[in-house]
Amino acid sequence: MAKDKKVEQITDMDVDFTQWYTDVCTKAELIDYSSIKGMFIYRPYGYAIWENIQHILDAEFKKLGHENVYLPMLIPESLLQKEKDHVEGFAPECAWVTYGGSDKLEERCCIRPTSETLFCEHYKNIIHSWRDLPKLYNQWCSVLRWEKTSRPFLRHREFLWQEGHTMHATEEEARAETQRMLNVYANFMENTLAMPVIRGRKTDKEKFNGAEETYTVECMMHDHKALQGGTSHYFGDGFARAFDITFTGKDNQLHHPFQTSWGVSTRMIGGIIMTHGDNSGLVLPPKIAPIQVMVVPVAQHKEGVQEAALKLLETLRSAGIRADIDLSDQTMGWKAAQYEMKGVPIRLELGPRDIENGVCVAAKRTGDKVTVPLENVADTVSSILDDVQSELYAKALKNLQENTFDAHSVEEVRDGCAKGGFARMMWCGDEECEVKMKEQAGVTSRCIPFEQHHIGDICPVCGKPAKHMVIWGIAY
Amino acid sequence: MAKDKKVEQITDMDVDFTQWYTDVCTKAELIDYSSIKGMFIYRPYGYAIWENIQHILDAEFKKLGHENVYLPMLIPESLLQKEKDHVEGFAPECAWVTYGGSDKLEERCCIRPTSETLFCEHYKNIIHSWRDLPKLYNQWCSVLRWEKTSRPFLRHREFLWQEGHTMHATEEEARAETQRMLNVYANFMENTLAMPVIRGRKTDKEKFNGAEETYTVECMMHDHKALQGGTSHYFGDGFARAFDITFTGKDNQLHHPFQTSWGVSTRMIGGIIMTHGDNSGLVLPPKIAPIQVMVVPVAQHKEGVQEAALKLLETLRSAGIRADIDLSDQTMGWKAAQYEMKGVPIRLELGPRDIENGVCVAAKRTGDKVTVPLENVADTVSSILDDVQSELYAKALKNLQENTFDAHSVEEVRDGCAKGGFARMMWCGDEECEVKMKEQAGVTSRCIPFEQHHIGDICPVCGKPAKHMVIWGIAY
Repeated sequence: MAKDKKVEQITDMDVDFTQWYTDVCTKAELIDYSSIKGMFIYRPYGYAIWENIQHILDAEFKKLGHENVYLPMLIPESLLQKEKDHVEGFAPECAWVTYGGSDKLEERCCIRPTSETLFCEHYKNIIHSWRDLPKLYNQWCSVLRWEKTSRPFLRHREFLWQEGHTMHATEEEARAETQRMLNVYANFMENTLAMPVIRGRKTDKEKFNGAEETYTVECMMHDHKALQGGTSHYFGDGFARAFDITFTGKDNQLHHPFQTSWGVSTRMIGGIIMTHGDNSGLVLPPKIAPIQVMVVPVAQHKEGVQEAALKLLETLRSAGIRADIDLSDQTMGWKAAQYEMKGVPIRLELGPRDIENGVCVAAKRTGDKVTVPLENVADTVSSILDDVQSELYAKALKNLQENTFDAHSVEEVRDGCAKGGFARMMWCGDEECEVKMKEQAGVTSRCIPFEQHHIGDICPVCGKPAKHMVIWGIAY
Repeated sequence: MAKDKKVEQITDMDVDFTQWYTDVCTKAELIDYSSIKGMFIYRPYGYAIWENIQHILDAEFKKLGHENVYLPMLIPESLLQKEKDHVEGFAPECAWVTYGGSDKLEERCCIRPTSETLFCEHYKNIIHSWRDLPKLYNQWCSVLRWEKTSRPFLRHREFLWQEGHTMHATEEEARAETQRMLNVYANFMENTLAMPVIRGRKTDKEKFNGAEETYTVECMMHDHKALQGGTSHYFGDGFARAFDITFTGKDNQLHHPFQTSWGVSTRMIGGIIMTHGDNSGLVLPPKIAPIQVMVVPVAQHKEGVQEAALKLLETLRSAGIRADIDLSDQTMGWKAAQYEMKGVPIRLELGPRDIENGVCVAAKRTGDKVTVPLENVADTVSSILDDVQSELYAKALKNLQENTFDAHSVEEVRDGCAKGGFARMMWCGDEECEVKMKEQAGVTSRCIPFEQHHIGDICPVCGKPAKHMVIWGIAY
């Protein structure tokens, strides 16, 4: 009864995917709305997912030699304007501070939409010699982009992210860093978030404002739309020239350093929801779940049940499993629905008969109930968590593979992507044809994937010789 | 030679304490200036100290049941205005956002100077029943206060902090939370930062805008001035009434919840510098030092030295000691000066003769060199780190005790505090006398300490019966 009541509150994803998504975000208590349009509240459960993401990625960054810093949130307008392409891209969506207290500022400042300009200003002060390179910096912060439309996690006016900014003595080293960090993102998304990705390069039209190259990891959601999971940019020495950053090389000559930046944001949480969620709510990959196992005692008023459940909890926790217990007076049905909604990978039930038999029952969020002996319970539960993680990845990979198709004409892309999916099609490399794909097929280029297949020799848009195979799709 | 050259760069603290402080902040590479006055760059070494602070406090908060959240950085003006005392205190130092892109905002927003109003707005949405209480939330973020003057760590326009915001069903519980969190801060500062504190209550004049009571931990710096290390506020149900937050109690009646907030900031790093630093630079308590031990090989070109040094490094790291190694081609003198400047607690030297003798030499940042056998080196080094931690606390405590004096007249306070120190003096409780102390003795009330002594029966300012013993001083 309680379960039915709870599940009814979520819109079925086949009926209205957008509403289903919003329902999961709010009903699983990940996020709340604030009084400013497009600015959201990260609630404890949503923020805990972000903390797990931070924890894992931060350790990875540090292992590779990156150091964390924190730069100001405000950018004077003249500083933002120093790199021409960059300001053109970002100025239209900046929020501007014009008053400090009751004094009008001499120069208005924007709240950082991204921090390349601030890092460049700082790098100019601290980079002088080849001995000062490389600089491998990262920053965890929020950024602000005054978007017209908004959706929880996917498009916020203010969102949390990390932005890496590095400076190198040589182009080769900077290019290698750009690739290295893209791979960090790709591996993290596949291994930890159980989200298969396509690694590739953005077309010039889709690349970051001011970048020479932008690399991306693209994921497919349940509805077969694309989500850009993370990006890594190679800047060459463009910003360094604009900001007059130089260093004395081993050759005793002045050089401009080569630059990269790379970032992922809380958008990934939207990706997790839309990759793994179902009509009962959120489904979290165990490696990122704030609660991996929820212990739910059955008939907990009976003698010995609560004690045994607490002992079980302690055993799991001692083994490093993120476990919790629900001893509330809610019904079993309510609890089952609640932890399904919250995407907890395993609900572990333990009642009087189970105790007698020396077992407990693991209800996997991905389906199935398994009877688990209390002897070595932590090992068994760990291995079930691994199974859930693998199942989720396999299911998501199947979705990606089954809904990616080769296309040989604009119409094929249009019709295929309208039904949902990614199209692989050859492209001549001209922006004109890319614009036509948007107009005629309603898709954008997601990336030029590193893994190229031979699909044909010509660009179906213009008939000229093809240069690359491109992934086309409809994106969030 | 190299060492002398380096040390010369710092102003002697007896010559100019302010300049000494700034020198340490910049030369130890903790902080850098940005192009906006009062907005600073937290450099990797300074940020790493903050990360250690975060790591320890965050675990402490969570152990006590607090959950992290993230709320928007912008506050609509009408929301800020809901609590009268609060807005009066903060509005004059708010930075205002008036444009989003090219559109003028219908209502301007300030960048959060603190988030009570935002938390109240959210709490109104999520608190309905006694089952929803307590709410124990914390947020790690930056806040912005458009101050006229600024100093690294001590007074920034933008600074990093944590702000806890809690809601409780009863006054008793909220008051207990206020005290509990003050004690978390006090214990952290004493045990981890080696900074002895005075715990007490602020006078009405000095309390937080909108609070019923503000509790504080006050520390004494090298120059005998006071630094407020952290505060914890009890709000009663004032904000809850202003924001119309209610819950249905177990009695089935509507009630307003009772509220607290509490915070510490990167200001504490300024406190660490001014409590422990010396004329060679920064001195870091081992428990918070990003690098606890720097291994410096002597004659590292000689056979076996580098290998032995790297092995030593590995041994220390395996034991959980934050150790690093300097294999650069800089001179021993430069390295010694460099790690003194950076406040590394132990410099561990290892040369060919040491290896022969099965020892290394530990140069403590607090003075003394100790020969340490390589057998069980990690245990010995850990114990030396503990010694350094204790020495620093003892020295700081001595400074506090020797420079705190009882006073029986305004003149005594004036003359004593001008020389540097804290005065204990009785007070009638009237704000008028507090104002006179500022005018006539140049001091402010730091707190009404929990540990009260009987110094006299009257308030020396007005001659009326005294209510409390107050700590007076000159504050940062």
